Amino acid sequence: MRTVKRAVLVKPGAPLEIWERPTPSASGREVIVSVEMSGVCGTDHHLQSGDITLPNPMVLGHEAIGRIAELGPEVTTDSAGEPVAVGDLVYWQPAQPCYRCYYCTVVEDVSMCPNLVTFQLHQHADKPPVGTYAQYAWLPDRTAFFKVPADVPAEALIAFGCAMPTVLHALNRLGGIRYGQHVLVQGSGPVGLAATLLAHLAGASSVTVLGAPPNRLEMATKLGATTTIDVTRTDERSRAEAVKEITDGRGADVIIEAAGRVPAFTEGLPLVAPDGSYVIIGLWSAPGTSPVEPRYLNNHNIRVIGSAYTTPRHMYETLQVTRAVHRRYPLAEMVTHRFALDEAQAAIDAVGRGEPLKAVILP
Amino acid sequence: MRTVKRAVLVKPGAPLEIWERPTPSASGREVIVSVEMSGVCGTDHHLQSGDITLPNPMVLGHEAIGRIAELGPEVTTDSAGEPVAVGDLVYWQPAQPCYRCYYCTVVEDVSMCPNLVTFQLHQHADKPPVGTYAQYAWLPDRTAFFKVPADVPAEALIAFGCAMPTVLHALNRLGGIRYGQHVLVQGSGPVGLAATLLAHLAGASSVTVLGAPPNRLEMATKLGATTTIDVTRTDERSRAEAVKEITDGRGADVIIEAAGRVPAFTEGLPLVAPDGSYVIIGLWSAPGTSPVEPRYLNNHNIRVIGSAYTTPRHMYETLQVTRAVHRRYPLAEMVTHRFALDEAQAAIDAVGRGEPLKAVILP
Amino acid sequence: MRTVKRAVLVKPGAPLEIWERPTPSASGREVIVSVEMSGVCGTDHHLQSGDITLPNPMVLGHEAIGRIAELGPEVTTDSAGEPVAVGDLVYWQPAQPCYRCYYCTVVEDVSMCPNLVTFQLHQHADKPPVGTYAQYAWLPDRTAFFKVPADVPAEALIAFGCAMPTVLHALNRLGGIRYGQHVLVQGSGPVGLAATLLAHLAGASSVTVLGAPPNRLEMATKLGATTTIDVTRTDERSRAEAVKEITDGRGADVIIEAAGRVPAFTEGLPLVAPDGSYVIIGLWSAPGTSPVEPRYLNNHNIRVIGSAYTTPRHMYETLQVTRAVHRRYPLAEMVTHRFALDEAQAAIDAVGRGEPLKAVILP
Amino acid sequence: MRTVKRAVLVKPGAPLEIWERPTPSASGREVIVSVEMSGVCGTDHHLQSGDITLPNPMVLGHEAIGRIAELGPEVTTDSAGEPVAVGDLVYWQPAQPCYRCYYCTVVEDVSMCPNLVTFQLHQHADKPPVGTYAQYAWLPDRTAFFKVPADVPAEALIAFGCAMPTVLHALNRLGGIRYGQHVLVQGSGPVGLAATLLAHLAGASSVTVLGAPPNRLEMATKLGATTTIDVTRTDERSRAEAVKEITDGRGADVIIEAAGRVPAFTEGLPLVAPDGSYVIIGLWSAPGTSPVEPRYLNNHNIRVIGSAYTTPRHMYETLQVTRAVHRRYPLAEMVTHRFALDEAQAAIDAVGRGEPLKAVILP
Repeated sequence: MRTVKRAVLVKPGAPLEIWERPTPSASGREVIVSVEMSGVCGTDHHLQSGDITLPNPMVLGHEAIGRIAELGPEVTTDSAGEPVAVGDLVYWQPAQPCYRCYYCTVVEDVSMCPNLVTFQLHQHADKPPVGTYAQYAWLPDRTAFFKVPADVPAEALIAFGCAMPTVLHALNRLGGIRYGQHVLVQGSGPVGLAATLLAHLAGASSVTVLGAPPNRLEMATKLGATTTIDVTRTDERSRAEAVKEITDGRGADVIIEAAGRVPAFTEGLPLVAPDGSYVIIGLWSAPGTSPVEPRYLNNHNIRVIGSAYTTPRHMYETLQVTRAVHRRYPLAEMVTHRFALDEAQAAIDAVGRGEPLKAVILP
Repeated sequence: MRTVKRAVLVKPGAPLEIWERPTPSASGREVIVSVEMSGVCGTDHHLQSGDITLPNPMVLGHEAIGRIAELGPEVTTDSAGEPVAVGDLVYWQPAQPCYRCYYCTVVEDVSMCPNLVTFQLHQHADKPPVGTYAQYAWLPDRTAFFKVPADVPAEALIAFGCAMPTVLHALNRLGGIRYGQHVLVQGSGPVGLAATLLAHLAGASSVTVLGAPPNRLEMATKLGATTTIDVTRTDERSRAEAVKEITDGRGADVIIEAAGRVPAFTEGLPLVAPDGSYVIIGLWSAPGTSPVEPRYLNNHNIRVIGSAYTTPRHMYETLQVTRAVHRRYPLAEMVTHRFALDEAQAAIDAVGRGEPLKAVILP
Repeated sequence: MRTVKRAVLVKPGAPLEIWERPTPSASGREVIVSVEMSGVCGTDHHLQSGDITLPNPMVLGHEAIGRIAELGPEVTTDSAGEPVAVGDLVYWQPAQPCYRCYYCTVVEDVSMCPNLVTFQLHQHADKPPVGTYAQYAWLPDRTAFFKVPADVPAEALIAFGCAMPTVLHALNRLGGIRYGQHVLVQGSGPVGLAATLLAHLAGASSVTVLGAPPNRLEMATKLGATTTIDVTRTDERSRAEAVKEITDGRGADVIIEAAGRVPAFTEGLPLVAPDGSYVIIGLWSAPGTSPVEPRYLNNHNIRVIGSAYTTPRHMYETLQVTRAVHRRYPLAEMVTHRFALDEAQAAIDAVGRGEPLKAVILP
Repeated sequence: MRTVKRAVLVKPGAPLEIWERPTPSASGREVIVSVEMSGVCGTDHHLQSGDITLPNPMVLGHEAIGRIAELGPEVTTDSAGEPVAVGDLVYWQPAQPCYRCYYCTVVEDVSMCPNLVTFQLHQHADKPPVGTYAQYAWLPDRTAFFKVPADVPAEALIAFGCAMPTVLHALNRLGGIRYGQHVLVQGSGPVGLAATLLAHLAGASSVTVLGAPPNRLEMATKLGATTTIDVTRTDERSRAEAVKEITDGRGADVIIEAAGRVPAFTEGLPLVAPDGSYVIIGLWSAPGTSPVEPRYLNNHNIRVIGSAYTTPRHMYETLQVTRAVHRRYPLAEMVTHRFALDEAQAAIDAVGRGEPLKAVILP
């Protein structure tokens, strides 16, 4: 029985504690993974600060890459049907839909499953944590996991840990970006940058990114942005004019909100072109309202599309996108900060201050 | 050369005037129709009152049924390919997309054509009006028109004149209603009643209609509403509770706004179920804003879908729906008020007071 | 521990045997149902005759209604989130996708799950059978089951046991039927009749049914067919002419194959209109080839859409459709033959001879 | 009045003749373009050889780039709303849907318009030809035309003249390629190569191209093919094995037929994976049948999708794709053969022998 170190959030506001617990073997359809790299997501910071609350104590971390340490006796392949063995590098979604509820079976949108075992929640005395700020993670039955192809560098994949699956899910809900559309991305964190790359790959005629600071905007340019605008050095009016000019006066065909601030929504909605769409991804932890004029949406055939979480399919697609493009775009350069498991608190603090493009914990 | 009587809006606020003008023959791909019945739409009232302004003088009326009086020498069929002859009863869309612009050719949404010849605008000295408050109407080239099958009563069709095509367009933008969904309709005018019927036909599990007065709600019940709530006798809170109870606490999967008032939007948006949609149809002439919490849309995978105008396809589908169901549902009973062309002003006044379920002018 | 009687197919060709076995309680997420009515499907006949082979011995029966006899301690609701209790009437899909494979997680089409536990296969010594020719049936974890609303008569639901979910799945793959389309249905067994009803409800302009014998065609008319043609009294050429005449010479916009014979495919494909679709549902056990001219499909923008099995969503929708329309259409009249469990062999024989519209076993 | 030279096909089989005719000015919504480069398409060869017959005499050529020579007084912008002036470089679709028929208005698929003025047909005594083997071409009203952005090299655009719009139309009918899908392209002419590029851009996990000769397969590799197989040096069985190996035994998720030969269809259909699609683009002039087993399509949820012609939208998207990628992929290298207008016959002969990757005529 191995002993597993993990970083535990005992209660909101408290610093993470390092706990060690013994761990039994994987049984049935379970898998135990030795975590090699765990992404630090803004959500982890929100959970520690108490912006979002879930039952404590919890182990944070919901985007990770690791090597299979143990396979339950009933597991022979990953979720894409690839044979797997101990030692294989894998990428997984640390949340399990129930596959029995109205959303899983009738609506066919597992991202709305009310029984979704939230990634940060698990505390099984006799299992490794599901959260990935830990030496080992436990993948219960119904966890989607995918073997990482040999030609995909781990840092290129973790760069957009949960950000790219989230954006792929949102773009699927949108119905995709058409060749030649004008896209506006609000925000230049990992979600905004993933949106930038995907809009560029989809053949957008222009990809304008509103964000800050300069190093993020530089990365946006490397990932396909055709224009970047530093929101700390411009005002709303000049940004609106810039968008109108880029889009022949029509406005953006697709706006992707990844700013996480309600004023971004207020600023962006009037910039949607007729027949265009405004996709909300980043506001899931941001309270507050914005004055919307429904007549504007009505008369211009505009859609507003909320999108939360992701699905196994979009995890798989993230792998495929990464594999397809990591040689052309500097995805791995996103990872600017690395921390040991014992430094998990420092990692979260750095993310809270917005310093890294992407921080990772190396347990 | 025949003389054609028409009701003209000389300027907003002025009473309609009856003008007579001589009219030459149809040439090329034009058609001239003898108007048998012209629906009176709330939009006509908004135009007269000046809520919406378009260049004057204009001939109101944009939903009509009539008999072909003259066919241009190049016209042999209607827009569905049916052979046509003088005397045939037809139904048409008095607006012509340009079929050359970005919206017509690239976006493939003719309802957003910026060159759309607006139905009320035409004043050609040498042609009958395009507006249908007239003895004869002129269908220029590119006007979609459809022969009315012999088994479709004219009143059953005019009952939902432009309302049903508008709702069909919106439901198409929505992606349709699924069997078993809970639908909430806000408003019980012709648009709301058309939405009620179409939601019922689509197999909605429940169709709840919020509206007034009682005779409209009775008609809603005849058209498939499973619950009706009189908004003049209930408060917002009790309506919200009713919706929650009907929908097993989830909220409505689809809400169709056909109330024409911004407070309806404010009241309705929080009643959308996860993965549900809020469709805005009725607010195109209603100014004002509503406080929206984008987090709510984000976290529940909610869509807000604006939808304006209609398309030739949905005119055709209106004919087909009417043909399919007029024996089972009392569509023709919608027509409660009839006016002569000379009484056009009285017709608009009655609609402004909300008296008729549907008023028609019989030129 | 109760004893459960079941009808067992020991090997292809052998008559069904009645076995009795003791049965323990439901545990975990399992449910045990007392079968009230099990539909007899053509597939059962194909399995007994050996047209399709699966491991034996097996318990046939994959469409049923029954009352909950035992709920595993973790089960509190059905798959739509409705609370359930012992004694509730339910309808279920006796097959469980794995929710872990490429088709379940990435393709998001559980009907192609290679690990689908086929309905007829189960032989657990210590469980009731999953097959429904039995007094009690076992619903393992991940079985989609739905409470039957009080206002839905059991016979109206079993009438289209697995037929309607299969057609709903196919129509979903098609993208739906548009108002006003011309639909041709080949075949008048339960699948063909379900397709007839659904095409009618979807607002098809015409629904032409090719089938036999007369009593099935009469039922087709009751369910919405606008024309029926007895294939035993007509030749292929006259049928083609009839279809062309009904469809203004264009051909059918949607053809639904539910005939189960390859010559139907050969006859039907050339009858598809430009931009139309040919949906194959009934040929899954019919070997053989048909000469297809790909140029015809190419030049007319035609789709051919294969569709096998169904999904939990379409089981739920079947309930909803039945609930919505059973008062207007004589669904329950479909059930023309009833058998006791001991007469299961006679039931299959009757279906093999094509005698019943629908036969059921009442255990 | 200018004199316009054109290459005329007087009757099938006859060599092209060079005619000169005087030409009046553009009126109304017409445009006259000075042709700079006209692509030579396989269809031109089929028309001359008589494989396809249209009324003669005709001017061939239906893919071209040119400069605006005259604008009718009513034309101020291209079809995307960009202002245009004499001298601007444009790209256009030399075919005009009627925008009045069942397909244009109800089905909303202008590619099936029965009144489509076929590109090669026009012979107006008093206009330049619509066909583009000419010094000047005439764009009547309703012709979709788009300004070529300054940063798009003409040869990069003409490289996939009508091929890329055709493939974009087909991929739209397919519903797009998903990230990570395995794609098989049959054929390595311009259509096959356009399909290769687009599948690669869409993020296909593998793009396998079956074709010949080696220089085309080398270009396929440059455009994103991950495997190329020379069909002249392999047999059908080895190709099937290669596809199975590449696709983990499942088969290709999407197969795009661009081979123009019925045996390609016969070979390819069994290589489609479950839930996959076979898209037919290249067989529109190839007579003959192939034995299809409908059970295979039925049981594996397979779609066969025919796709003919293209639409204005896909012309526009072709411009956008070209603009987005011409710096990364050697599109202009496709143009291997150039001919003067007087050499049009030699150009067609070269294409008939399969020598050029792409031949162009420079009038």
